[in-house]
Amino acid sequence: MIDRASVESVRRALAEDLAGYGDVTSRWTVPADLQGRAVIEARKEMVLCGLSLAAAVMREIDPEVVFTPMVKDGAFMAGRADLALLEGSARSILSAERTMLNFLMHLSGIATQSRRFAEAVVGTGATVVDTRKTTPGLRIWEKRAVVLGGCKNHRFGLFDMVLIKNNHLEAAGGVRAALDRVRVAAAPFIKIEVEVETEADLREAIACRADVIMLDNQEVEALRHLVRVAREIEPGVVLEASGGVSLTSVRAIAETGVDLISTSALTLGAPPADLGLTLSI
Amino acid sequence: MIDRASVESVRRALAEDLAGYGDVTSRWTVPADLQGRAVIEARKEMVLCGLSLAAAVMREIDPEVVFTPMVKDGAFMAGRADLALLEGSARSILSAERTMLNFLMHLSGIATQSRRFAEAVVGTGATVVDTRKTTPGLRIWEKRAVVLGGCKNHRFGLFDMVLIKNNHLEAAGGVRAALDRVRVAAAPFIKIEVEVETEADLREAIACRADVIMLDNQEVEALRHLVRVAREIEPGVVLEASGGVSLTSVRAIAETGVDLISTSALTLGAPPADLGLTLSI
Amino acid sequence: MIDRASVESVRRALAEDLAGYGDVTSRWTVPADLQGRAVIEARKEMVLCGLSLAAAVMREIDPEVVFTPMVKDGAFMAGRADLALLEGSARSILSAERTMLNFLMHLSGIATQSRRFAEAVVGTGATVVDTRKTTPGLRIWEKRAVVLGGCKNHRFGLFDMVLIKNNHLEAAGGVRAALDRVRVAAAPFIKIEVEVETEADLREAIACRADVIMLDNQEVEALRHLVRVAREIEPGVVLEASGGVSLTSVRAIAETGVDLISTSALTLGAPPADLGLTLSI
Amino acid sequence: MIDRASVESVRRALAEDLAGYGDVTSRWTVPADLQGRAVIEARKEMVLCGLSLAAAVMREIDPEVVFTPMVKDGAFMAGRADLALLEGSARSILSAERTMLNFLMHLSGIATQSRRFAEAVVGTGATVVDTRKTTPGLRIWEKRAVVLGGCKNHRFGLFDMVLIKNNHLEAAGGVRAALDRVRVAAAPFIKIEVEVETEADLREAIACRADVIMLDNQEVEALRHLVRVAREIEPGVVLEASGGVSLTSVRAIAETGVDLISTSALTLGAPPADLGLTLSI
Amino acid sequence: MIDRASVESVRRALAEDLAGYGDVTSRWTVPADLQGRAVIEARKEMVLCGLSLAAAVMREIDPEVVFTPMVKDGAFMAGRADLALLEGSARSILSAERTMLNFLMHLSGIATQSRRFAEAVVGTGATVVDTRKTTPGLRIWEKRAVVLGGCKNHRFGLFDMVLIKNNHLEAAGGVRAALDRVRVAAAPFIKIEVEVETEADLREAIACRADVIMLDNQEVEALRHLVRVAREIEPGVVLEASGGVSLTSVRAIAETGVDLISTSALTLGAPPADLGLTLSI
Amino acid sequence: MIDRASVESVRRALAEDLAGYGDVTSRWTVPADLQGRAVIEARKEMVLCGLSLAAAVMREIDPEVVFTPMVKDGAFMAGRADLALLEGSARSILSAERTMLNFLMHLSGIATQSRRFAEAVVGTGATVVDTRKTTPGLRIWEKRAVVLGGCKNHRFGLFDMVLIKNNHLEAAGGVRAALDRVRVAAAPFIKIEVEVETEADLREAIACRADVIMLDNQEVEALRHLVRVAREIEPGVVLEASGGVSLTSVRAIAETGVDLISTSALTLGAPPADLGLTLSI
Repeated sequence: MIDRASVESVRRALAEDLAGYGDVTSRWTVPADLQGRAVIEARKEMVLCGLSLAAAVMREIDPEVVFTPMVKDGAFMAGRADLALLEGSARSILSAERTMLNFLMHLSGIATQSRRFAEAVVGTGATVVDTRKTTPGLRIWEKRAVVLGGCKNHRFGLFDMVLIKNNHLEAAGGVRAALDRVRVAAAPFIKIEVEVETEADLREAIACRADVIMLDNQEVEALRHLVRVAREIEPGVVLEASGGVSLTSVRAIAETGVDLISTSALTLGAPPADLGLTLSI
Repeated sequence: MIDRASVESVRRALAEDLAGYGDVTSRWTVPADLQGRAVIEARKEMVLCGLSLAAAVMREIDPEVVFTPMVKDGAFMAGRADLALLEGSARSILSAERTMLNFLMHLSGIATQSRRFAEAVVGTGATVVDTRKTTPGLRIWEKRAVVLGGCKNHRFGLFDMVLIKNNHLEAAGGVRAALDRVRVAAAPFIKIEVEVETEADLREAIACRADVIMLDNQEVEALRHLVRVAREIEPGVVLEASGGVSLTSVRAIAETGVDLISTSALTLGAPPADLGLTLSI
Repeated sequence: MIDRASVESVRRALAEDLAGYGDVTSRWTVPADLQGRAVIEARKEMVLCGLSLAAAVMREIDPEVVFTPMVKDGAFMAGRADLALLEGSARSILSAERTMLNFLMHLSGIATQSRRFAEAVVGTGATVVDTRKTTPGLRIWEKRAVVLGGCKNHRFGLFDMVLIKNNHLEAAGGVRAALDRVRVAAAPFIKIEVEVETEADLREAIACRADVIMLDNQEVEALRHLVRVAREIEPGVVLEASGGVSLTSVRAIAETGVDLISTSALTLGAPPADLGLTLSI
Repeated sequence: MIDRASVESVRRALAEDLAGYGDVTSRWTVPADLQGRAVIEARKEMVLCGLSLAAAVMREIDPEVVFTPMVKDGAFMAGRADLALLEGSARSILSAERTMLNFLMHLSGIATQSRRFAEAVVGTGATVVDTRKTTPGLRIWEKRAVVLGGCKNHRFGLFDMVLIKNNHLEAAGGVRAALDRVRVAAAPFIKIEVEVETEADLREAIACRADVIMLDNQEVEALRHLVRVAREIEPGVVLEASGGVSLTSVRAIAETGVDLISTSALTLGAPPADLGLTLSI
Repeated sequence: MIDRASVESVRRALAEDLAGYGDVTSRWTVPADLQGRAVIEARKEMVLCGLSLAAAVMREIDPEVVFTPMVKDGAFMAGRADLALLEGSARSILSAERTMLNFLMHLSGIATQSRRFAEAVVGTGATVVDTRKTTPGLRIWEKRAVVLGGCKNHRFGLFDMVLIKNNHLEAAGGVRAALDRVRVAAAPFIKIEVEVETEADLREAIACRADVIMLDNQEVEALRHLVRVAREIEPGVVLEASGGVSLTSVRAIAETGVDLISTSALTLGAPPADLGLTLSI
Repeated sequence: MIDRASVESVRRALAEDLAGYGDVTSRWTVPADLQGRAVIEARKEMVLCGLSLAAAVMREIDPEVVFTPMVKDGAFMAGRADLALLEGSARSILSAERTMLNFLMHLSGIATQSRRFAEAVVGTGATVVDTRKTTPGLRIWEKRAVVLGGCKNHRFGLFDMVLIKNNHLEAAGGVRAALDRVRVAAAPFIKIEVEVETEADLREAIACRADVIMLDNQEVEALRHLVRVAREIEPGVVLEASGGVSLTSVRAIAETGVDLISTSALTLGAPPADLGLTLSI
């Protein structure tokens, strides 16, 4: 199914670049039969993500260009490195260049950012996970980039986990009432996470056996306290911290003893990776 | 046509969030007839972009929720400010919340970044313009955000301008040959820009009456020299600088006398804007 | 989102009926301005499901026909009853008739069948749930019909729950190995069910804290035994029976003490409901 | 064109099963490079229908799995029999299993049911034909299943035959008026069938040279009488019976001398065929 | 369903005109709030066809422009005449102008051409009908234009009539064999036309009771002879002439006594109608 | 991207011909395994356009039919000539025949017409260019046909050139005001053409350095005068004539000294080319 999703994403991206008369520059300056050989290369340290999309872009433009990956998605490049070799019509390669790089820069940027977060918590028991703060239309790819970078995925969307936040609690009438309503409505096929802000709510959430408890927007000290409280009641309770997470704060949060740290910083505003394409004709 | 484009982008984004059983949390914790009133608010200084998309998200989820914009796309918020008021089913508003904010954070981030660049060159004769380095699938929105922020758009895609870069020059056999080929192929309905790296090529490009000449990856001093050379030959020649453009470097580049400065920094890696939704039920 | 899904399902269904010159019979025999008044009626006992789809069919053919529901989806009709009133162009109503009824017969049949199963286990602690054995293209509607009939939904698809069956166990190397692999791969955001066939596997699944344990294709006596074994080890363990479930066998299965009984009989081969449309002109 | 239709039906069906993170169970328990060999098998007597769709499902998930049909669509299996062999990635086969079987069970059920009807009228001059009472979205496949089972197709939709029913007669002002209107409107390129309930209408329909005359909802005795009346006036008139048709009643109806018997029982509520997939790894 | 078809045709047409930055001329020269009043007018004699498509174009661009038809599709304009009034944003009207006119010119051209053919055979018993030689993607509209012009439609496509041509006859082994094969395969729900070239084949086609017999590419004298032969055998036989039909030849062909004359000249190469839009601001 | 566009155009065209039960004639008269060999041939002088679309039609119907082009798109046939050879299932070739020919007749007609115009101005300095008066849905193909015939393309749509016509001038307040508005709004990446009717406007347009100036609907004498005036002021100004252009008038217009002559006669109402398919079985 991945391949089909990539075909659709690729076509949408190419439609932005190739309306009307198409790539007029290449058609009018590059001979139709001129062959070329191009290398896509990493120019800085990065975790690679998006190579199959780049290949799909090239195939969509011209299936006769041979696209040979030289590393795999998820590979870590310590510095400048060749990623893929393209051989075929120079005109076709030039028409595909920008769209291939746009995918690679965006997704490798996220994978690389995720690697930084994963490394920041190494040795603590905590795992960094993503959120639903993703770029509209690219969630499936961005969440894959997160995993390639060494972090893990939270729920995909609104449909594959119950996550009860403040507004839901207020609407339902508190933690116990909300969890009861969900358990009546759902057969036991879905995990239930509940967000708590106070120690009282935390205790109630544990009592109600929420599958995961989110401690939102807590200072590190407060977090440490709540973790201790929770572990005393129920050692195996799963605790997630969120809010105020950055590369500088994440280790301190991890060391409070939480199991999970969710942050939009994996996907939102991750610096694009530095990649380029060099064509020889 | 804009509205239709937004409907498609919005549906694609919602499909990511609402597969399977949909928003199970809201369905199972929030009563179907509970009414709410929500405000979307800017939390920091920003140029707003994406409000019509947010409205389209809400309408797609539930056309009965009344979405009232309180400012217009392109408005500059000096700090915390209310942007839109939503009144209707609390459940529907919660289902729409994340997708609305994802659009607004991404696009307002780009508009705000563009404003910073536009301000950085105020009083010079230069205009900052965008590139084709955009997020796949969102180009039309990102380029609008650029304009709302006070910069301008370069060509949309490969189809609405001829932009002859190094590879094209090499394939065609130099500046004159490339321009000749394009002029023979195209009737005079499209602008032709050519990228030059040397003074010799610059002189040739001017002699061939290229509509725009791109001076790529030049140091500021070299740029100043080339601008002077070009203006002596042909005062009205249109010169574009690109490469190495950042908020710190852009003013110095502008002061070399170029007409245009193109940079991917308007769209790539622009920090997401800080927005939120507050629901009262 | 429901409305959009219904529009797509409805258009696909109408495209089957209205290719080429469209409804030639109505166009050539019924005057364009002839008004009619039609009633959609249940002809036998049933739980109604699909009325919003029928309304969408009518709206798609002719938005000027007024479609007035007289009961709600999920309502139980003890016998002959009027379900909706349609007023407007006789020609349009006739063009829509068959497609409206096709949806209603199919989905009300499933809702009605689900009601029979729900009633059959009343007073036992068991809940009857559906499966992924649905009609290709209609899963979202069929699963809604199941709920309207009083049963509950199992996972929607392959994506919203881990369900480890024999082949997975074999590939992973047994219950413990499979559960370990899943727990390493997934952060704790998804429920894990495992299918067991022997008491040894049942004990291992309980030891590994599977969220749900499926006892597949067991005789009633064997089932009763396994339930007793499981409850002794861990009273709160969630047990699901599947295989060989029919309206005649379901109560005996429920009385073994299992929590859940899954069966394709809710959706596959449910007898279509008996509905008709009567037009007065 | 069939292949394209199957690709669309298959994608729609797979989208139901593979949203979000896709087949998480197989991805997390089955090694990526584990090869398997699976057999799709009939478990009871049946007429096979849907094998090309099953192959399309497998190809859509993973084109590298080799799908080898062992019999052809339309083949009659007297009992347990192997239908197709699948060789390749175990993970891919498991992801495709349920969707392949859902198509095969549904369509082979209809083909098998059609065979029962075809056999029930063997030796009479009557042919059993289907109706437009099909599952929304699957008409093209269900009507093919009918033919494979040995019955024939009535019109496909509202567009490829004129079928004048009671409401049309009432709107047009009777049999003669309706037929006249149609003949004026249509050039003689489409067959005209008219539904009659009385002997008077039957005589008028024959007089007006309707191409087919439907005798709707008649008792067997009344039917026999009307057939005799019709044959006396015009021996070659084509007569269709409909209403109250079941496997037990169909032969008696056929023996009244009608040419055609139309029934929704071929497609609606046909018992699903019993098929399974066995994987060896 | 017509409306939906028009929405799709209109969107496809607009996508050709409004890619990239859209209608830049109007956006950059016409103030956003400038109101205008435009008239679409016929400039020569014509039968109008396509007004609902023009309205759909306008609505798609800007639903706030009020589009008021002043005549109906199918109306005959003896000369210069106003067809529709548009009131609203001048910018929107200018963006829609060309696409509206492109539909109207093409379809009114076909309707007008059809009227010429219909008038040419007035008083003979013959009816002029269209063919499947239509512009790819516009068949439904072109066939409607034919009817508005006073001619009739032959089959819509390959699916709603059997039309046995030379190649089919050769493959099947002659007229009788071909008709027999079709009658066995099809239940009697579709008309069968057969193309004949010789008197022997004509006699055989009559003997086999073909519903329509096409006399292809015959000289007028030969045609007259074959008509006479046919009428003698079976006075009610339906005869269609085709080949070599033009506005100058059609009356002579009609006077041979054939029932139907099919010609691609209704749709192929019909001169576009002369229409314009006048905007006052 | 061309290939993908052709697949979509081809599917849309085939959907018109193959709804419902598909090509019933071929299915019921031609044996499934009968092989054929067909030639597509030009029957008169023409410039060929559309062969890749014809190949795509054949491939969509049956990828096993071997389609061998014998000439290339753009080739000029002086008379009767073979264009492509098709070998494979006779049934498939017959199902594809009409749709293949519909594309070829329409597009080769336009290419041939364009050749006539190109030849008519040979030796003058003028180039004939197309307009946006194209058949809705087929613009990309029609504009390619124009080029194959030896003319050139004007802008593709509203988005790739600014073309200021009377209404825009009126809204903006004259030539200078309009050009100023555009230059402020657009960075210098798009050409600007302005339509003028008077000598005063022509002078102003030259003074404002419009990239192209359109002289609309001028008599030949007036045109000659305006050209002379313009060349005196600015020898290199680009002048386009439009209005009243036909094969008989175009040379006189070209001899006035204009650079470009735009005419809808290239695409609108171009006589369809005469092509056929001959099948041997």
